[in-house]
Amino acid sequence: MEVKTFSPPERILLGPGPSNVHPRVLQAMAQPTIGHLDPAFIGLMEEIKFLLRYTFKTENEITFPVSGPGSVGMETCLVNLVEPGMKVAVCVNGVFGGRIRDIVERCGAQPIVIDAEWGRAINPQRLDDVLISNPDIKLTAFIHAETSTGAQSNIKELTEISHRHSCLVIADTVTSLGGIPVMVDEWNLDAVYSGSQKCLSCPPGLSPVTFNERALHAIKNRKTKVQSWFMDINLITSYWGSGSRRSYHHTAPINALYGLYEALLLLKEEGLENSWERHKKNSEKLIDGLKNLGLSTFVKEEERLPELITIKIPDGVDDLKVRNYLLDKHNIEIGAGLGSLAGKIWRIGLMGYSSNEENISRYLNGMKEAFKIM
Amino acid sequence: MEVKTFSPPERILLGPGPSNVHPRVLQAMAQPTIGHLDPAFIGLMEEIKFLLRYTFKTENEITFPVSGPGSVGMETCLVNLVEPGMKVAVCVNGVFGGRIRDIVERCGAQPIVIDAEWGRAINPQRLDDVLISNPDIKLTAFIHAETSTGAQSNIKELTEISHRHSCLVIADTVTSLGGIPVMVDEWNLDAVYSGSQKCLSCPPGLSPVTFNERALHAIKNRKTKVQSWFMDINLITSYWGSGSRRSYHHTAPINALYGLYEALLLLKEEGLENSWERHKKNSEKLIDGLKNLGLSTFVKEEERLPELITIKIPDGVDDLKVRNYLLDKHNIEIGAGLGSLAGKIWRIGLMGYSSNEENISRYLNGMKEAFKIM
Repeated sequence: MEVKTFSPPERILLGPGPSNVHPRVLQAMAQPTIGHLDPAFIGLMEEIKFLLRYTFKTENEITFPVSGPGSVGMETCLVNLVEPGMKVAVCVNGVFGGRIRDIVERCGAQPIVIDAEWGRAINPQRLDDVLISNPDIKLTAFIHAETSTGAQSNIKELTEISHRHSCLVIADTVTSLGGIPVMVDEWNLDAVYSGSQKCLSCPPGLSPVTFNERALHAIKNRKTKVQSWFMDINLITSYWGSGSRRSYHHTAPINALYGLYEALLLLKEEGLENSWERHKKNSEKLIDGLKNLGLSTFVKEEERLPELITIKIPDGVDDLKVRNYLLDKHNIEIGAGLGSLAGKIWRIGLMGYSSNEENISRYLNGMKEAFKIM
Repeated sequence: MEVKTFSPPERILLGPGPSNVHPRVLQAMAQPTIGHLDPAFIGLMEEIKFLLRYTFKTENEITFPVSGPGSVGMETCLVNLVEPGMKVAVCVNGVFGGRIRDIVERCGAQPIVIDAEWGRAINPQRLDDVLISNPDIKLTAFIHAETSTGAQSNIKELTEISHRHSCLVIADTVTSLGGIPVMVDEWNLDAVYSGSQKCLSCPPGLSPVTFNERALHAIKNRKTKVQSWFMDINLITSYWGSGSRRSYHHTAPINALYGLYEALLLLKEEGLENSWERHKKNSEKLIDGLKNLGLSTFVKEEERLPELITIKIPDGVDDLKVRNYLLDKHNIEIGAGLGSLAGKIWRIGLMGYSSNEENISRYLNGMKEAFKIM
């Protein structure tokens, strides 16, 4: 095999993530590496925490990026709050709820599943029913924005119900953070994780998390050790916490954190509320355009995510051919359906830096061409 | 808090990692992000695997970078090969052997510790004795290059002994890979992990691993599920394996992988053997210079790592003052001692791109100045 310097193609990323990354973020990552205990880096860590608190709308002290992709953030929240033998209410309306169920089982606990059809929100009444008939459940986990279907659940309401039954909540905001309101403090979310590569427009590889005092209290009072060394919040916070002296835990991914910092800074410059508004407006523009092409969305309006729109693939249209055409002729990436939705839907991400009018018209033009040819 | 674009200082990184990163690697990371299932990215993944096999001196098919720092690579090897109730021989001669012991316990298994004084190699005879008296041990884990002490163990011999007792081995090569010989196939190492930020001179955040057929057979024949979803090799290999169709597992850290690829390419351009030779020569130069300053090394010659030299801090010398002086006046980072060695040793890394003559003279001059002033 002959190897030489790699030059990636310039893609318009309209899939379920990663989204396109702002040139300022890319350039930030190319700055010289410094040590993970360098005073300059410790200062940067504090600023990242400050900006993440702004983004999560929280005052939680323990708010930092886990050194791994979103699924590590998910597993971090779960392994810290789940203990063997526990019963955990898990809301499943797509791939990522299913992943939570899997991890809960790997923690030696029993998931009690509240399911919904793929493409639909979780029905809060069904969670209430399950918690009424299972008073021994003390933890609930759900997905805000199901990346596999494009459906949005009402996590404010799911949290209220959970708290009424004395359950802590874990909320997945991987595809929602930065794109739609995520109000960690106002909604009383206990443990929350997200990903860097969606509406934050950063390359993949980091998972912002935040834990409130209730969650930390539960973690500190576990009967058993957290099963993962790397993900044990008690240990990680010796590095990411606010102690006067930071101690070594693992070597943080320095340059990736330069990038996250710059991406969060861009978000703050725009203003979080303005970012939500931009995602909403561009979503409406896309949906108008889709209607003109005779295409319809998979998720009904009141449960639809603005930043990730799923489209029904019309009968007789070859999923792969269309996606390959867009990629090869227009450098546009869109997402395929996962699991039982493979071949049935497309997933169009308008997330972060990717969410702009030019991308929408390029995509709609590409689709028009594709339909003409096929 | 006011936030603005971050400009890191230009440091000479002579600590235990990260090491300095070549400008080509930094620039590679600033290239546009593409999707983790983009055909161009799939091609890059194959090239990264090819280059990692070159670096690990192996033909193992399952050779790829875990999407997390070295400690995730460590935990990945352990959670896949350790099952609850097992006895595992763990060699502990510093912080990282201790971390293995901790993870083995978190897997519900019993570590049987073969310890050595910090700063010494593991005594192979002691491993043999333990395996003779514990015929139920089927797994051995050890550190090649103890980053906390600068001592090197003979993992070829530790592996031969382990295999004679029908034990699989897990070898930590975080600080050795690229700096001293790591012969995965010739030495029959079963599961091996490393880190990107040491002698590979890449930013931290990725952990190359390799598993041979014996290790994969053991993983496939586990009685229990791997306790981590993210680290389960059975799942990760659906993405990083060589199947005709890759399926989504997690979103790979695209730009970090651009960097790793370029770093591995630089290593191949230099030639692995030449890199080992460079580390050796520069180590000798440093040690000569230290002698002239009246400083002595912590590890005796035959067990000393060339890429990480530990120095005894002379009586009456203030550890922190010297390190701060080097950092503030010369932009040079060196490492402190960990645990019981705090205040007693310095750790000087001459790893990867940091291992060059100019850095050595700058460091020695800085030390000379520091000693004059203090």
